Amino acid sequence: MGDKPVWEQVGSSFVENYYHLFDTDRPQLGSMYIDSSCLTWEGLQFQGKAEIVQKLSSLSFGNIAHSITAQDHQPTPDNSIMSMVVGQIKADEDPIMGFHQSFILKNINGAWVCTNDMFRLALHNYAA
Amino acid sequence: MGDKPVWEQVGSSFVENYYHLFDTDRPQLGSMYIDSSCLTWEGLQFQGKAEIVQKLSSLSFGNIAHSITAQDHQPTPDNSIMSMVVGQIKADEDPIMGFHQSFILKNINGAWVCTNDMFRLALHNYAA
Repeated sequence: MGDKPVWEQVGSSFVENYYHLFDTDRPQLGSMYIDSSCLTWEGLQFQGKAEIVQKLSSLSFGNIAHSITAQDHQPTPDNSIMSMVVGQIKADEDPIMGFHQSFILKNINGAWVCTNDMFRLALHNYAA
Repeated sequence: MGDKPVWEQVGSSFVENYYHLFDTDRPQLGSMYIDSSCLTWEGLQFQGKAEIVQKLSSLSFGNIAHSITAQDHQPTPDNSIMSMVVGQIKADEDPIMGFHQSFILKNINGAWVCTNDMFRLALHNYAA
């Protein structure tokens, strides 16, 4: 870890923690958001920790597993971090689907939180 | 346009202009970046208007056409805009491929510029 830039370290730690919680204990994801955080989930918008956790907790699948194909991280001009994740998702007995998700992470009072989150399935993204 | 929030208007205008220039006159994309802008292209990192334009201009395809499947935009806590695009790309005679790209747009001296840009093909993102 020592040689990696801080945004790579912070971003990859966030990604690991986020999907671990998502797959094992979704209500705990609330600890990663703040009251001004925005989530766009398949085009639907949610704002604030409570709304976001309610949305994520109410997704209808029982068992879910994320597998990360690639992740990229960059520093932003405002000392935040942008992360983009490409991966696959396996929900219950559904076929495996591609997904992509982008985050902005910001350090507030010494803790990195997620202020922006966008998720899309890659379902409509296949070659014709 | 009048009823849309400003980040939707700015984000969707940017997306339209960006892919129009990409498909018709790639060297002109330089006008959208600044010297601190970061591009991560398929995992490779580039910084600054000159490096980014050189990378985008040197991509080996002749004809390229982007088709946008979905785009999302959010305001960030630092008065920037995050945009995520999902779409398909047709380069020369290659098969159509899925792609996803995320941007941060920032207003600097009255103009919206792209400070962060991440691109990945969805090639490795298909269901098993």
